[in-house]
Amino acid sequence: MIQITFPDKSVREYPKGITGLDIAKSLSNSLAKEVVSVTVDEEIWDTTRPIEKNASIKLHKFDDKEGKHAFWHSSAHLMAEALEALYPGIKFGIGPAIENGFYYDVDPGDGISITEGDLPKIEAKMKELASLKNNYTRENITKAQALELFNKKGDNYKTELISELEDGTITLYRHGNFTDLCRGPHLPDTGFIKAIKLLSVAGAYWRGDEKRKQLTRIYGITFPKQSQLDEYMVLLEQARARDHRKLGKELELFMFSQKVGMGLPLWLPKGAALRERLQDFLKKVQKKHGYDLVMTPHIGQKELYVTSGHYEKYGKDSFQPIHTPQEGEEFLLKPMNCPHHCEIYANKPRSYKDLPLRFAEFGTVYRYEQSGELHGLTRVRGFTQDDAHIFCRPDQLKDEFKKVIDIILYIFKTLDFADFTTQVSLRDKENREKYIGSDENWEKAEQAIIEAAEEKGLKTIVEYGEAAFYGPKLDFMVKDAIGRSWQLGTIQVDYNLPERFELEYIGSDDQRHRPVMIHRAPFGSMERFVAVLIEHTAGKFPLWLTPDQAIILPISEKYHDYAEKVLKFLNNSDIRTLIDSRAEKIGKKIRDAELKRIPYLLIVGEREAENGTVSVRKQGEGDQGSVKPEEFVARVKTEIEAQIAEI
Amino acid sequence: MIQITFPDKSVREYPKGITGLDIAKSLSNSLAKEVVSVTVDEEIWDTTRPIEKNASIKLHKFDDKEGKHAFWHSSAHLMAEALEALYPGIKFGIGPAIENGFYYDVDPGDGISITEGDLPKIEAKMKELASLKNNYTRENITKAQALELFNKKGDNYKTELISELEDGTITLYRHGNFTDLCRGPHLPDTGFIKAIKLLSVAGAYWRGDEKRKQLTRIYGITFPKQSQLDEYMVLLEQARARDHRKLGKELELFMFSQKVGMGLPLWLPKGAALRERLQDFLKKVQKKHGYDLVMTPHIGQKELYVTSGHYEKYGKDSFQPIHTPQEGEEFLLKPMNCPHHCEIYANKPRSYKDLPLRFAEFGTVYRYEQSGELHGLTRVRGFTQDDAHIFCRPDQLKDEFKKVIDIILYIFKTLDFADFTTQVSLRDKENREKYIGSDENWEKAEQAIIEAAEEKGLKTIVEYGEAAFYGPKLDFMVKDAIGRSWQLGTIQVDYNLPERFELEYIGSDDQRHRPVMIHRAPFGSMERFVAVLIEHTAGKFPLWLTPDQAIILPISEKYHDYAEKVLKFLNNSDIRTLIDSRAEKIGKKIRDAELKRIPYLLIVGEREAENGTVSVRKQGEGDQGSVKPEEFVARVKTEIEAQIAEI
Repeated sequence: MIQITFPDKSVREYPKGITGLDIAKSLSNSLAKEVVSVTVDEEIWDTTRPIEKNASIKLHKFDDKEGKHAFWHSSAHLMAEALEALYPGIKFGIGPAIENGFYYDVDPGDGISITEGDLPKIEAKMKELASLKNNYTRENITKAQALELFNKKGDNYKTELISELEDGTITLYRHGNFTDLCRGPHLPDTGFIKAIKLLSVAGAYWRGDEKRKQLTRIYGITFPKQSQLDEYMVLLEQARARDHRKLGKELELFMFSQKVGMGLPLWLPKGAALRERLQDFLKKVQKKHGYDLVMTPHIGQKELYVTSGHYEKYGKDSFQPIHTPQEGEEFLLKPMNCPHHCEIYANKPRSYKDLPLRFAEFGTVYRYEQSGELHGLTRVRGFTQDDAHIFCRPDQLKDEFKKVIDIILYIFKTLDFADFTTQVSLRDKENREKYIGSDENWEKAEQAIIEAAEEKGLKTIVEYGEAAFYGPKLDFMVKDAIGRSWQLGTIQVDYNLPERFELEYIGSDDQRHRPVMIHRAPFGSMERFVAVLIEHTAGKFPLWLTPDQAIILPISEKYHDYAEKVLKFLNNSDIRTLIDSRAEKIGKKIRDAELKRIPYLLIVGEREAENGTVSVRKQGEGDQGSVKPEEFVARVKTEIEAQIAEI
Repeated sequence: MIQITFPDKSVREYPKGITGLDIAKSLSNSLAKEVVSVTVDEEIWDTTRPIEKNASIKLHKFDDKEGKHAFWHSSAHLMAEALEALYPGIKFGIGPAIENGFYYDVDPGDGISITEGDLPKIEAKMKELASLKNNYTRENITKAQALELFNKKGDNYKTELISELEDGTITLYRHGNFTDLCRGPHLPDTGFIKAIKLLSVAGAYWRGDEKRKQLTRIYGITFPKQSQLDEYMVLLEQARARDHRKLGKELELFMFSQKVGMGLPLWLPKGAALRERLQDFLKKVQKKHGYDLVMTPHIGQKELYVTSGHYEKYGKDSFQPIHTPQEGEEFLLKPMNCPHHCEIYANKPRSYKDLPLRFAEFGTVYRYEQSGELHGLTRVRGFTQDDAHIFCRPDQLKDEFKKVIDIILYIFKTLDFADFTTQVSLRDKENREKYIGSDENWEKAEQAIIEAAEEKGLKTIVEYGEAAFYGPKLDFMVKDAIGRSWQLGTIQVDYNLPERFELEYIGSDDQRHRPVMIHRAPFGSMERFVAVLIEHTAGKFPLWLTPDQAIILPISEKYHDYAEKVLKFLNNSDIRTLIDSRAEKIGKKIRDAELKRIPYLLIVGEREAENGTVSVRKQGEGDQGSVKPEEFVARVKTEIEAQIAEI
């Protein structure tokens, strides 16, 4: 018999060789139907793999991250089986589970192409094969056997992968007529996969190398229930409608230019103004909290980043050094603002009385990303961090953390991110030698973060081993209006840079001490934040922030003079107002204005011109009655005041 | 006889071989004593050189640019003669006249050094030699003769220079015991040089090449009268006291860091805030004038600058391309914002009704300068232009020019640059083929600028041949408080970039047309402007702009509580206020606050704490009586309102 320990620390005895699935069955039959993988002593296993010795286990359903992974990975294999049936001789690259679903990179053979038109056929084949409920079986084989198997099949991509593996670590998975090189784990059988949708086809270079063959990448997603797939497809549709790349273009917020380069956004007037409003908002909050704005160049000598360690870490994979014509100097585009801020700290002697110093900068940084990785404003090559570095004494750490949390909570509240989670990342409990900084300081810092988060009423998940080598941190993840998670603000303690830059202050004991540094960026970056905000609000920004707050719609040309008068009055009253003086029907003007997400539509016709009023229509809420322009201004200002609470 | 035409177009006959000096004598003996060079048919000559044929001439006194040049160039030769007398065997590099005075690069020989301590001795020798009134004489020689002469002397720097000259173009100048390779022109004799001051000694690489020998550069200045030198030395002292590098450090406005790199300013909190106030001020003006703010990246693909022509023009001499790790892309640090703005213009089709479009950006650009050329904030490698590009129809050019002039005049008025001059740079009247754009458009643009300047009441100097090849321009030069001229704002018409980027709009005729582009930067760059402002105001910025507007000086510790209360009230009232709570005597606190250029000193002691008042002392104006803090706030606000006129 072996002893099995459950997550609640309870222990049960089972015969040696028991499987996760059998254990699930021993608990409840309905549970067994849902269990898709099992964690055995920190490793994730198939539920059908025998457990031979005492172990801690955790059973995973589809709802768990681990469950989804096994489910989608098995689905990739199922798709491969369907493809092999439909395209004999097709060759396979890799086919992993991803955040939402799975893909497989395949080479259908010269002259054969798979397009989105083929997806329904493949989907149908997958459903047919799934209904056979074929078992996924695991098999250990030698490297020689594996090479022989895939050589015989002609699968040169697989043999390339196998040749790089160590003998004794190679496993196969088989189900139905399909065999794949794979670590697993997988579902017990294909029957678990009840709902299938293949989503798209794209090109992908073998091993991400543009010099090698371009394979066909087929994306899909599957679920245990059809209703889950239906829900997902609705979400996907919503997400498409909110896609910040699409809305950013429609609302003329930003653009990309082939000539300027990929991943380098250009902010158009409406977008630049929106970003400025966000920055001004944050500047005001930061000023109240004692931050000092600084401005630093976008390049620095290579030496600077050698000192900071950034060159060693990112140098090879990032934008390469900039040389000068004569003097043999080398500069780098700055990947981070912190080295510059350290130099400002070091500009003069500091006393314990000067601390904390809080240097803030909307600093634009440049980091190379492969073109295939770029995505709208969320994955770019140049972005502006709402950055700040706090230099403080160790005893000030907790207070400073609390103040930063205050700022982040204030931002979330103002921008209506009601649903968020936080994670504290601490040291690995076991391997403490891999962290820089004294044990005592780490102890203090970790305690400070935990206490600060607690005192601010945050419900945090604590993750051990997730801290950076230079300090613990606190991360904020927000859920957007359609339930997707986005990583936003970070507060990060750093013992490393003060050490590397030899930063000091004179303590009350007249001795030299090293300050602690906190990196923090509530938005993360302006680009990413605006993207998230677009997707969260579907382009319907809060009134204070939105590009155009009102649009005047004259019913006919007769009222243009009056409309212009109102326009001038509103703009002079700092209400961002447009006019639609096209010779279109009022119905069309209303529809167009709504498409542009303008919150207030002000209709002016005969009655309004006579009475000196405007007929107010609010986006999504319809008619609000007629008011004098002064009254409208007052209403807008009241509404905005309610949106931005006092700091 | 030959005919000599004077600047007033009058013509006189003189014998062939007459000299400028003789012509001057024929006009007036006192004039002849002051004439130091003469322009003969566009070439500047010695006044003693015979004129052999009909010519137009202009006589130059020391007050003219051309006169100063000859005077200081002759002084460099005089210094060389003195050096040769004091340091036998000394070798000479080059010794030009510069903006203020002259220098000579010399190699005194191994083991011999010339330091500032040696300057009085050299000065004395120069005076002695000057009093000999030795004539400067000109001599044409062959290349072979020149090489032989300087070879014999052992002057290897001179022989290097001669070896690069074309035979038949080489002239020598001799005076006293000294002979130099030189184009001239020079004074009639050394007796003209009455007042001499050697200023400093520096190192300078031979031919600016750091791989070659470092020579000793000796700077000096001379005048026809001692009183002029005395005045100059006072000005120099004033300029030193106003040096923005010195004040920038003292007032903690900006810093440079060895590690970040030369010529790359880092704006410290007080400087960054001041710059932000300037930017906000300009943003507000620009908004009123219909500008749209945009934001663009600090890099662009090399392609972009090949299209714009910047790569061809500056590529080799500037920061070199940035490569990417894998994809073989090439980026450049942007030297100008215009290509990015052209891409924004090209982002969608434009109609004649959309124009003018005015894209503004505080865009930071990077241009390589040799380290020896760098100077504080006025000559840097990275700077932020208060840039904008106006895209308009040809018929809108004059109006747009007038609007930009309005902005610049408004800025000058607000920032107290009462004394300025303007220059219109037009095409060369003769060589019209070297300019891009149709004759008709040039005609229109030149006329538009001249009329706009006239209608705005500007007194302009018109310079033919000074226009860029791509369009005419209008430049603004301001005089600072001690009379020095600084080039600031520019308004530049551009036909070239719209052509290169193939920009278009659809005209009212439904045809495609090319817009005209105007570049304009009223400040020039934030860095340069702040430097000029510091030197103009000697750090005493206008109240609305200055970093700290008031400082509270408690007479003793007893009044700290009251002082803190006032501090909080003033800061909450948006008066930037500090407190000096050191245990120092009030006299010292006042002196220190004045050194920091803080406009208002608020003294609080027993009487003030009792009455709830502050004793106001204004920088430079002394005691202003006691007032309630509310009253002080009102006064400050009134003063600021008076400084910033309504736009």
